[in-house]
Amino acid sequence: MDQRMSLLTLGVADVARATAFYERLGWRRSSESTASTAFFDLGGPVLALWSRSALAEDAGLPPPSEQAIGGVALALNLGSRAAVDATLAEVAAAGGRLTRAAADTFWGGYTGYFADPDGHLWEIAFNPHWPLDADGRVRLPG
Amino acid sequence: MDQRMSLLTLGVADVARATAFYERLGWRRSSESTASTAFFDLGGPVLALWSRSALAEDAGLPPPSEQAIGGVALALNLGSRAAVDATLAEVAAAGGRLTRAAADTFWGGYTGYFADPDGHLWEIAFNPHWPLDADGRVRLPG
Repeated sequence: MDQRMSLLTLGVADVARATAFYERLGWRRSSESTASTAFFDLGGPVLALWSRSALAEDAGLPPPSEQAIGGVALALNLGSRAAVDATLAEVAAAGGRLTRAAADTFWGGYTGYFADPDGHLWEIAFNPHWPLDADGRVRLPG
Repeated sequence: MDQRMSLLTLGVADVARATAFYERLGWRRSSESTASTAFFDLGGPVLALWSRSALAEDAGLPPPSEQAIGGVALALNLGSRAAVDATLAEVAAAGGRLTRAAADTFWGGYTGYFADPDGHLWEIAFNPHWPLDADGRVRLPG
């Protein structure tokens, strides 16, 4: 598995409220942001603010009220569906627990999730709309 | 507050067990790692594995068994103690809840913590042992 992180998603109760807080800190949302998700370029990795319940569902986990995830997911973006499959196979071989098998997403990507030994979530993703640069980094528009 | 993240700390039950897992994925620890903390260069931000209870204590929070933090903290590293104070003042003005006031640390740094509206932890830090490059990024030795 590549030693990189592409995206850090904070699961939040109210995306508008959370976005307003970070904007009060002087941060600027990327134009990639939508009504349901705010993206901020952190100078390499991307911070996403997204519904905590949607994150749990996407990761194949019970609703937040019934489980102990902290509402945080890291992500590693790769260049192809095959790379996602290969990485998840490596993770499983290393003892990672797959919480959701890789599958096509409604936005045209391909992602799966695993939990590390302490339950920290990683999403392994192919996103054809976010090409990676030569260093494998996601570069959002401003 | 600078729109950057320097360090992502995962609070773990057993640092050796968590480190072994990430090493099985092919990741290489930085020589900055100690018996109590493993550091991995993620191509910009740094991933740290650290005791979940130590993280809670450092952030001024109750032990993990008594509260709901997910054992994750982001960090923003800055160039001086004064910059830490200034950023925490901005955070408080923006409605962030300071969980631990800025204070000198045993390792020669100066840090404070705040929680965002959903309780996600950020550490604001000055670490004289980790100089920042021209882009404000922490660069660990290999």
